[in-house]
Amino acid sequence: MEDIVSLKNQQVKRWRKLRSRKGRETYRTYIVEGFHLVEEALNTTTVEICCIMGSEKALALLGKVDHLCPIYHLTAEIVAELSETQTSQEIFAEVRMPQLEENLKLKGPYLLLDAVQDPGNVGTLIRTAAACGFEGVVLGKGTADAYNSKTLRSAQGSHFHIHLVSGDLKQLIQKMQHENISIYGTALHQKAIEYKDVSPQEVFGLVVGNEGAGVSNDILQAVDASLYIPIRGGAESLNVSIAAAILMYHLYDPQ
Amino acid sequence: MEDIVSLKNQQVKRWRKLRSRKGRETYRTYIVEGFHLVEEALNTTTVEICCIMGSEKALALLGKVDHLCPIYHLTAEIVAELSETQTSQEIFAEVRMPQLEENLKLKGPYLLLDAVQDPGNVGTLIRTAAACGFEGVVLGKGTADAYNSKTLRSAQGSHFHIHLVSGDLKQLIQKMQHENISIYGTALHQKAIEYKDVSPQEVFGLVVGNEGAGVSNDILQAVDASLYIPIRGGAESLNVSIAAAILMYHLYDPQ
Repeated sequence: MEDIVSLKNQQVKRWRKLRSRKGRETYRTYIVEGFHLVEEALNTTTVEICCIMGSEKALALLGKVDHLCPIYHLTAEIVAELSETQTSQEIFAEVRMPQLEENLKLKGPYLLLDAVQDPGNVGTLIRTAAACGFEGVVLGKGTADAYNSKTLRSAQGSHFHIHLVSGDLKQLIQKMQHENISIYGTALHQKAIEYKDVSPQEVFGLVVGNEGAGVSNDILQAVDASLYIPIRGGAESLNVSIAAAILMYHLYDPQ
Repeated sequence: MEDIVSLKNQQVKRWRKLRSRKGRETYRTYIVEGFHLVEEALNTTTVEICCIMGSEKALALLGKVDHLCPIYHLTAEIVAELSETQTSQEIFAEVRMPQLEENLKLKGPYLLLDAVQDPGNVGTLIRTAAACGFEGVVLGKGTADAYNSKTLRSAQGSHFHIHLVSGDLKQLIQKMQHENISIYGTALHQKAIEYKDVSPQEVFGLVVGNEGAGVSNDILQAVDASLYIPIRGGAESLNVSIAAAILMYHLYDPQ
């Protein structure tokens, strides 16, 4: 265990840069905060942990770490500098982003996010897709960063259990369609199909869209069919994470 | 239109009291903030509006109000005092809570909330239940207040389109079962039934529980059956609003 006592320490400077998307994309790492996420990272064999850091008390609470990564003991001042929560649990891990894969496997369903802006929604969508057994989530242009601290918090550790990629949705849709995989959009317009009229299946793509504007028109034109969820009783709409959950759990039949 | 310029005005004092649950229960009214909620209240014939209030600019933007309620023009200081949002739209309505009904109609499905603590979850649950066409939501002991400003914001005006009641869940479950209405709990235990094995139906009760503890044991013992949603791929759980949405949309068949 190494003590870090200065805010000017090189590691601290680096961790501070990981707060921004640009910094995370430069180093290809991100920071998770809190016992739940740190323990989940430690317990997932496919996750590469660069280091663990925290206050003396928090490191003691975490207990023995069976992991060959450096452990840093931080001062209260540095903990406060790194924390992005209101009441910090004073424990962090720096985690390596998974390698970008050139070719998606396409052996299970994918959730495609078209400009979903709210990090809380993106986190919940990742969490639900992982729980439903989806193979991956593709974050299209304009979507909140998967490694934003708010996204990480609302995903509750699901980042470690599902394939996450950033990509051009139109290209991916073409590629999937080329492999005879159906892609479903979500829409409110008249030509859309009520989702329960589509049979559950094993491999498909489902696109959900921006909180205000929905799925963009050029993507709706590219999909095989658009689905809608009936809205009854005078209500106006469903939250995007809710709508996606209803569709994912209806459409996916893992055989 | 009446101008209110002093923070010590009796109306302002009263509105300030409506910030707390105790105040709202004393006056049986609550405040909605922002154009969307105020307009939704104005457009819903069953909603009784006590008054509209806002800054000069916001009242001008709202336009002519076809409603026989007083309209108050507030100073910036009073607007700041009343607002519960980070960037206020400077428009409010005081709305009367619906009368407590002694007897629920029980002609459609009800969502029962057992100690759901987070106001954002309670709001999303109300919004989803309304969209799904549920007849009502019953807020059991320990559940966040339906008229909390955060609940109102995440429900997006659905309060006006669904029957909301606070009540003792065990008594209500007994009453519903006495009328041969099935009540479903949600659980992760082995005796639970996979939700897709239950056929869609027209009238039923669905109980969802606390974010950490789930549905309490004494309620699980009273329900007709407990349902579970399969969690795959290493994920741990679903958010309560997400789980409830999947179950509501699967279970309800409006005929």
